[in-house]
Amino acid sequence: MTYCVGMLVDAGLVFLSDSRTNAGVDQISTFRKTAVFGRDGERVLVLMSAGNLAITQAALSMLREAVAASDSRVSLATVPNLFEAARHVGETLREIRRRDAEALQAFGVEFNAALILGGQIRGEPPRLFNIYAAGNFIEATPETSYFQIGESKYGKPIIDRVLQRTTTLEEAAKCALISMDSTLRSNLSVGLPLDLTVVHTDAYKLGEQRHIDGNDGYFAMIQSRWGGALRATFDELPNPSPLGEG
Amino acid sequence: MTYCVGMLVDAGLVFLSDSRTNAGVDQISTFRKTAVFGRDGERVLVLMSAGNLAITQAALSMLREAVAASDSRVSLATVPNLFEAARHVGETLREIRRRDAEALQAFGVEFNAALILGGQIRGEPPRLFNIYAAGNFIEATPETSYFQIGESKYGKPIIDRVLQRTTTLEEAAKCALISMDSTLRSNLSVGLPLDLTVVHTDAYKLGEQRHIDGNDGYFAMIQSRWGGALRATFDELPNPSPLGEG
Repeated sequence: MTYCVGMLVDAGLVFLSDSRTNAGVDQISTFRKTAVFGRDGERVLVLMSAGNLAITQAALSMLREAVAASDSRVSLATVPNLFEAARHVGETLREIRRRDAEALQAFGVEFNAALILGGQIRGEPPRLFNIYAAGNFIEATPETSYFQIGESKYGKPIIDRVLQRTTTLEEAAKCALISMDSTLRSNLSVGLPLDLTVVHTDAYKLGEQRHIDGNDGYFAMIQSRWGGALRATFDELPNPSPLGEG
Repeated sequence: MTYCVGMLVDAGLVFLSDSRTNAGVDQISTFRKTAVFGRDGERVLVLMSAGNLAITQAALSMLREAVAASDSRVSLATVPNLFEAARHVGETLREIRRRDAEALQAFGVEFNAALILGGQIRGEPPRLFNIYAAGNFIEATPETSYFQIGESKYGKPIIDRVLQRTTTLEEAAKCALISMDSTLRSNLSVGLPLDLTVVHTDAYKLGEQRHIDGNDGYFAMIQSRWGGALRATFDELPNPSPLGEG
């Protein structure tokens, strides 16, 4: 299983993904689920993926192939804006589906993929999209400024309570890491290492990147202190007394 | 959608259910999802249900019919222990499935039901079961002392962090209510009113019951203070600085 979250705030974008892919109980592998495309000074795009690894890896390979091609085909390096980038990613998923879906179905494998695409192309503000397996997509709005894919529910409440457009990138990263910590605790199939990727508004290049494994002091602090602080907060609230009708 | 949680601690059992059943966007109804069976001084059983309302209501009707019948059939009033009670509930689901599944399938409706059964029958300690649509079931153990059915993931992290067998009934009820608050905030299809039901170990009768609607002062306090306290806790933890590799 996977958990990825992408957040859009005034100051930019924060992406966090875990790296665990499991193909059965005793076969747990780690793969990076965050990919970056761009040209410094002009565009930066970050893509995170969840779902069937064969599908999402094929999508990534095809997107990279299009970027590397010297002909005039559409690619993440040439699309004029993020909306067209999301369409291109969606079309890529549809192409894989046309090719693979029948064979997958024969083995009872669902065509399962979800992507988060965000970034900024010169001429427009930063944008964030959630792309479905069907190739259609939705865009983050001021009301919903984040997307999650994969095992998303455990880590949703803390984001709903904290994240706003005015949240700083540091706070958004902290929120994403706490959200991931909650997910890690409640679902063993999501695991370290993590990839944190930051994009600053109007920088048109990749911001900070952080590969978080068991040796990352900051995440270890989040893991030890958030649980304890939550417990202390819990203890501070009065018990329902009497338990029956108040 | 529904969210129900049942908790087993040394001091007894806590059950919490929401009451919303929705059959489409503009048709939201409320039904009680908690049912109580028992005979004071001898047994008390609490049953919560999630899933297709036609199925869970049929199950409840059949369970009540068996209790009311004057013949010697198996019922929740006569089973010698909680394990047999869970088997009886599972068999009831299987009977409904034999009768209805084909017709439901013709309309593309999945046979979807989940139940939590807990309580105590004289001669054994309190026990808690999670019964699946297939009629099979699992029992709470010292390692997993709670079950959730329905929209369960949003409210799981706080339980994982707080609940232990030594938790008091008051604390367990507070934990259940905070878990429900997180679910309510993240999923609009789970809603008030709530039903809180408590069973004390070795009481062999129903403990406190509390019907929680918009006027319940304690739950309003939880709703207003937990979010704020969580936000304060969030603010207290340092930000990741620098954002990149530490």
